[in-house]
Amino acid sequence: MDTIDLAYDVFSKACPSRGTLEHVTGRWGALTLGALHEGSLRFNELRRRVDGVSEKMLSQTLHALERDGLVHREAQPTNPPRVDYELTPLGREVADRLLSLIHFVEGRMDDVLVARRRYDATRGAR
Amino acid sequence: MDTIDLAYDVFSKACPSRGTLEHVTGRWGALTLGALHEGSLRFNELRRRVDGVSEKMLSQTLHALERDGLVHREAQPTNPPRVDYELTPLGREVADRLLSLIHFVEGRMDDVLVARRRYDATRGAR
Repeated sequence: MDTIDLAYDVFSKACPSRGTLEHVTGRWGALTLGALHEGSLRFNELRRRVDGVSEKMLSQTLHALERDGLVHREAQPTNPPRVDYELTPLGREVADRLLSLIHFVEGRMDDVLVARRRYDATRGAR
Repeated sequence: MDTIDLAYDVFSKACPSRGTLEHVTGRWGALTLGALHEGSLRFNELRRRVDGVSEKMLSQTLHALERDGLVHREAQPTNPPRVDYELTPLGREVADRLLSLIHFVEGRMDDVLVARRRYDATRGAR
């Protein structure tokens, strides 16, 4: 189903793709890209949508995603200034794949919770 | 392309799906699932494949993935005991989606690196 790109390899710790994968899939990166998939948002709107993120972590996450070319930051010339964040075309393609994973995981959580109970029961019996 | 499951929501910090998403997409979880997608591996084989992971982190990662029902641990009755790790059917479905994301990111790293240079040049000029 997938083609393998020989130039970059996330399994190699020196490859820059590993850093980008971590920005995309990290605790807050994944949720930020997922939230922006629904449309452009302002900083405080994003912060409410990504439940539990601190202002500092959201700011760091957005900078990393902007630097990687996945998120576009648009400062509106208003007073007070208003800043909108939106996915770039590349960011949208990344978010599509990420949301496919997120929705799959959400849809199979009943199975995951059954597995957890079985695991904990077995471990407790040893 | 995706259906939205109403029972679980990773955007909610209290939802158990957020923990599972983090096990799957975390720094080492993603690479471990990706490595096992190629076939079953022993602990030390996995450790070599996931370049940079420590014994402790790989052990923790495997426990979390096993508990979530994504990885199966099979202890062979040999002397010395031999332990193989492999994806469960659910783990394989998760890994398919994860690898789609990983291969996409690897394939677009040239664009990411161009974006980074542009970002750094603009920030440096301010």
